[in-house]
Amino acid sequence: MSKLFFASDYQEGCHPAILERLAATNLEHAVGYGYDPHSEHARALIREACAAPNAEIQFLVGGTQANEVVISCALRPWQAVVAATSGHVSVHEAGAIEAGGHKVIELPEHDGKIGAAQVEACATAWETDGNRDHMVQPGMVYVSQPTECGTLYTRAELEALASACHAHGMLLYLDGARLAYALAAPENDVTLVNLARLCDVFYIGGTKCGALFGEAVVVPDPATIPHFFTQIKQHGALLAKGFVTGKQFEVLFENGPQADGAQADGTQHGPQADGTQHGPQADGGQRRTQGRLYERLGQPAIAAARRIKAALGEKGIPVCMENPTNQTFLVADSALLARLDGRVEYGFWERLDAEHTVIRLATSWATSEQDVDDLLALL
Amino acid sequence: MSKLFFASDYQEGCHPAILERLAATNLEHAVGYGYDPHSEHARALIREACAAPNAEIQFLVGGTQANEVVISCALRPWQAVVAATSGHVSVHEAGAIEAGGHKVIELPEHDGKIGAAQVEACATAWETDGNRDHMVQPGMVYVSQPTECGTLYTRAELEALASACHAHGMLLYLDGARLAYALAAPENDVTLVNLARLCDVFYIGGTKCGALFGEAVVVPDPATIPHFFTQIKQHGALLAKGFVTGKQFEVLFENGPQADGAQADGTQHGPQADGTQHGPQADGGQRRTQGRLYERLGQPAIAAARRIKAALGEKGIPVCMENPTNQTFLVADSALLARLDGRVEYGFWERLDAEHTVIRLATSWATSEQDVDDLLALL
Amino acid sequence: MSKLFFASDYQEGCHPAILERLAATNLEHAVGYGYDPHSEHARALIREACAAPNAEIQFLVGGTQANEVVISCALRPWQAVVAATSGHVSVHEAGAIEAGGHKVIELPEHDGKIGAAQVEACATAWETDGNRDHMVQPGMVYVSQPTECGTLYTRAELEALASACHAHGMLLYLDGARLAYALAAPENDVTLVNLARLCDVFYIGGTKCGALFGEAVVVPDPATIPHFFTQIKQHGALLAKGFVTGKQFEVLFENGPQADGAQADGTQHGPQADGTQHGPQADGGQRRTQGRLYERLGQPAIAAARRIKAALGEKGIPVCMENPTNQTFLVADSALLARLDGRVEYGFWERLDAEHTVIRLATSWATSEQDVDDLLALL
Amino acid sequence: MSKLFFASDYQEGCHPAILERLAATNLEHAVGYGYDPHSEHARALIREACAAPNAEIQFLVGGTQANEVVISCALRPWQAVVAATSGHVSVHEAGAIEAGGHKVIELPEHDGKIGAAQVEACATAWETDGNRDHMVQPGMVYVSQPTECGTLYTRAELEALASACHAHGMLLYLDGARLAYALAAPENDVTLVNLARLCDVFYIGGTKCGALFGEAVVVPDPATIPHFFTQIKQHGALLAKGFVTGKQFEVLFENGPQADGAQADGTQHGPQADGTQHGPQADGGQRRTQGRLYERLGQPAIAAARRIKAALGEKGIPVCMENPTNQTFLVADSALLARLDGRVEYGFWERLDAEHTVIRLATSWATSEQDVDDLLALL
Repeated sequence: MSKLFFASDYQEGCHPAILERLAATNLEHAVGYGYDPHSEHARALIREACAAPNAEIQFLVGGTQANEVVISCALRPWQAVVAATSGHVSVHEAGAIEAGGHKVIELPEHDGKIGAAQVEACATAWETDGNRDHMVQPGMVYVSQPTECGTLYTRAELEALASACHAHGMLLYLDGARLAYALAAPENDVTLVNLARLCDVFYIGGTKCGALFGEAVVVPDPATIPHFFTQIKQHGALLAKGFVTGKQFEVLFENGPQADGAQADGTQHGPQADGTQHGPQADGGQRRTQGRLYERLGQPAIAAARRIKAALGEKGIPVCMENPTNQTFLVADSALLARLDGRVEYGFWERLDAEHTVIRLATSWATSEQDVDDLLALL
Repeated sequence: MSKLFFASDYQEGCHPAILERLAATNLEHAVGYGYDPHSEHARALIREACAAPNAEIQFLVGGTQANEVVISCALRPWQAVVAATSGHVSVHEAGAIEAGGHKVIELPEHDGKIGAAQVEACATAWETDGNRDHMVQPGMVYVSQPTECGTLYTRAELEALASACHAHGMLLYLDGARLAYALAAPENDVTLVNLARLCDVFYIGGTKCGALFGEAVVVPDPATIPHFFTQIKQHGALLAKGFVTGKQFEVLFENGPQADGAQADGTQHGPQADGTQHGPQADGGQRRTQGRLYERLGQPAIAAARRIKAALGEKGIPVCMENPTNQTFLVADSALLARLDGRVEYGFWERLDAEHTVIRLATSWATSEQDVDDLLALL
Repeated sequence: MSKLFFASDYQEGCHPAILERLAATNLEHAVGYGYDPHSEHARALIREACAAPNAEIQFLVGGTQANEVVISCALRPWQAVVAATSGHVSVHEAGAIEAGGHKVIELPEHDGKIGAAQVEACATAWETDGNRDHMVQPGMVYVSQPTECGTLYTRAELEALASACHAHGMLLYLDGARLAYALAAPENDVTLVNLARLCDVFYIGGTKCGALFGEAVVVPDPATIPHFFTQIKQHGALLAKGFVTGKQFEVLFENGPQADGAQADGTQHGPQADGTQHGPQADGGQRRTQGRLYERLGQPAIAAARRIKAALGEKGIPVCMENPTNQTFLVADSALLARLDGRVEYGFWERLDAEHTVIRLATSWATSEQDVDDLLALL
Repeated sequence: MSKLFFASDYQEGCHPAILERLAATNLEHAVGYGYDPHSEHARALIREACAAPNAEIQFLVGGTQANEVVISCALRPWQAVVAATSGHVSVHEAGAIEAGGHKVIELPEHDGKIGAAQVEACATAWETDGNRDHMVQPGMVYVSQPTECGTLYTRAELEALASACHAHGMLLYLDGARLAYALAAPENDVTLVNLARLCDVFYIGGTKCGALFGEAVVVPDPATIPHFFTQIKQHGALLAKGFVTGKQFEVLFENGPQADGAQADGTQHGPQADGTQHGPQADGGQRRTQGRLYERLGQPAIAAARRIKAALGEKGIPVCMENPTNQTFLVADSALLARLDGRVEYGFWERLDAEHTVIRLATSWATSEQDVDDLLALL
């Protein structure tokens, strides 16, 4: 048995349909900087998927870049962003937000989330502080969907957050690095249309969701970020061959089955080219084979994660940060780690004590049923 | 006759050999952030090509990003970068260098270049100014090879620049966005080995030289930029799937013909997939079919540009900013513009008067002989 | 004869009337950060002097700080400031503007000034450039009154500049570090009321005009710079004991002779405490002894400079950068330098050749007739 | 009875001896930017007081400015500063540290302090994190002496902090905004000499300790912050008339009684000019009348605070954040607040519930015995 890869959801290239499109259009000539027809088409498809006909959509390259650029461009100098202590911007971006001039006000997380009441309290504390002019103003709330813990905000929670933000003049920004895995989770009740209605800015993650790279930043009301294009350029975040990102999101947001049915999703390429081929069996035949690829692409990852979680439950292996998406956090004892080492690539999370370690098993659009079978055999 | 595309050298996807590699390795599993074997292999190949065994090599996504990140990370807060008035950092980066905190000291250009004597004078002016502690210190010289005008620094000129820089404690940084077109020009006497010996930092451009995207920043002495990786992350410039860039530079720096001979360079894909197929005829049979793809890839562009320049000369159409690389700047009168409009995509440069306009015709690795034939028929 | 001091206009403490006020009110208790009654009174007086009843007025500590804070707070990230090559922000602020993230677009100066036509051309160049979204937008024009060369903008010139700025959506910002010397020059036709009508922001210099330190930034329409107070704090530019600056500007803008007549201007303190005592004779009896101290305080400096300029003319010593204010730039040959050395502190400006050097002789509110007599004896 | 002022320690002008010096030297001519003899003398005196003969000493204007400039100039871009959640840099500087590009890592405070073990844990967590290259490096520890709660670090605590910092390559920076009140507290065992030995940078506060404004930044090893002068200029923090600050610190660090004995400390100016006149009685005759003014100047404030604290204890009014310096935090019920309102200016701190509020009573060098008598009568 060859090594198994569950370390992260960005270990492989891209969904075969994307690679096909890149190959088929490789020598087309196009203007740069995202003004090409593929990028414009992708924007139109995303606007339609979001029911946000006026949205400005800019394609960036990665998640930290998206967060850094959006926060820097949307906030004014006297404003800070509010995030969970576990938020990606709080911890894992090498100080990118502060390097852009803004404080991250960290609020305690609950299951990786922050709530409207916390936001209310934070905003009110600033508003009523006699020294508030000596303090940064909370100007934006940052949340992730799914969160860094794999949990999901419900639509009601997001509506409450949006109300709290807007009642206090704050923007709501949602980081959708793994959004496809939220959209594919049966427990999820937050659609792209909801996001475009509730958020002032959000991004649809490509890097972790089947693209070679790329994140689509959606600004439902373009006035929210003036001169966004020039600011993107200034941040070094403008891709000369913008059409490379545009083509990827075009594929992700086209409607199947024509664009991405049994034929188009790559099954004819053989096993090595098709990360999703076992999907239909995996989810008991309920997998959608129609609709936008982006909304279907996370399904094998969710199915795989459910099998893993179920197996852990059966074997009595403790799970932490329970969640309905593609990440599984478990407490591995030394014996289990010994069984996995050298056989499975996993994510180290935290050492609890000499005998116990929290590890992460991430599934993705590219995880096959066979991969999961082999993993479960090892557990 | 279909439309002809001479507007820029980043209008197409990538060299077919790169696309093949991406397809062949698409579902390989790899760690992120450039620690994967492809990226490490690409680094080893570049170090070898540069005879710089200790060099730190980081893959970034685009040229403005490379300039912004390198300058910001290499300079200290009290330092400025010195560049030609025509330098890309002076004009076309939306203030990215200043947004990073550094002044661009602009020196007059001559054929797009600045000389060692100018750098000497600039450094000495600061050193001998009684108010120098109230002024930014010239800490780096920025040059491009080829320049924004398509001209080339000679090895002697670069050696003089390096001497001037190092005599005054300045770094020499070279922007190689179009470096493949310098390396392919017969007039060029500056090799990658020379660059690694003379420059403190330089980047090998991929975006305009056959890659989908990507620039390889080479730091011959890694101590020049401490904690470069973390700073790249902080700038939002770290690609999660670093292997996508790594694979591209791996292909560009592998040795042919095994890796990139008649078979590997994609001719079996048919005409639509092979931008370089007409190359051998174009340059009179002298085209190298061995060696690193990056050092061969610019040849069809140079051959095409020479044919265009020769034709302009024959027809008496004035050329400005004469240069030996892939960009041709010409003065088009209204009649010529009328003949080109709708038939040829070109780059608008500058309106001289009601009757005359400077336009740019750029060739690339993807320009075919037929494209040039058709263009010359129109001229 | 003791040494003579003509090196700059900030070599002494403050006008005696200011020192008196500080002493008389030293142990008053007051709230901090500029909310005290003296600061509020000073603001009211300045608003009245400027006929700008709604103006926001913030007291900063120094000129570079005022420029850095105002430009940083008034511009948006994608904007640049336009200035003469000789502008203080272009050269002598150690890159403070760029450290704040903004490019300084330098235009050629004529007598230290830039003209409306230049501003028009600069704005139009950006507006009509096909690549303007890749370039910083000229968002503000920076001028100094008097200029760094001591020259004055006329009211007509400022009106033209303001029109050009406002026609292109740019702010007009005026640096009044030496404004008292402009207001005291007979050639000047630009009043504080004119400045408040034409400029979007300007500052009234205290440091070089009789204060221990301090500059009063005037924003006729406060909406021009939102959250200015918090941004000042963020820049480390908010003085805890704001009343120290407030008291100084209160004295400078109170009306004499009650506040600053024969008695109040300090003559009773004896020679060592009164820098202006010889003033009345110096200007042939035309010196105003009524009105705001700030508008009278430059008179002895102007009178002294006129005597120096006249003497240079008589002796045939060449003057450069001719101007009607308190700085005199002259070409000194070696013999003259030898006569001055050790006897006179002057400002070194530029070495022309082995035999000739440009030096600056600056007068101030503290220059006495005797000082000038002694200097002329040496020339 | 007139109103009583206990709201803060920066409500008055300056110690009378400083005002005298400014008056006596007002029309002296001097070079700018801190190169004058007074500033150099002040530096020599501070070096001597700190037993730090090589220290670089720069005079800045205020505390937030000192923090912002020091932290920005001493840290490299990939580094963060570690501070207590109650640290001034964490809360009350309007995001100045982040605007300078650096994250503030907040650690829980205990009596306003952080301990060596916390610093150790923070540094080790970063060092051992597998993702540390994606995180900012803790590069500096920020502490205040006295803390924002008025408490004091012991010499042993500072030694442990310094050891922890230096073991992990971190700088130790101490904010001495109220340092005179630490030095005057009998409980204090940390001298200026200790600070210069243990800290990499610290500042001696003037604004809250008897000066009109000004903080003296001490860098025992000047190599710690290269090009500090130019960076200060770049931050807009360089005072043109540096001698105004220099003279103040000259007075504060001269040795009495010659320089500041019975005569020099201003008692001959009468009640309105001498904030310290009642001191000798206040501390039972133990007040030093010799030595540096800075080391004596806090004594009346400490004596006054002790009387207030004793009175609160006698009356059973609860004190919170107990401390030995010049700030007293007490829980006032509605009846007490009613007695104080309109009679005493105090600092509002926090509302505990409808009936109870934490308020601050701050004493200073300017607090008289009579002020305390009157306050106690009200309590």
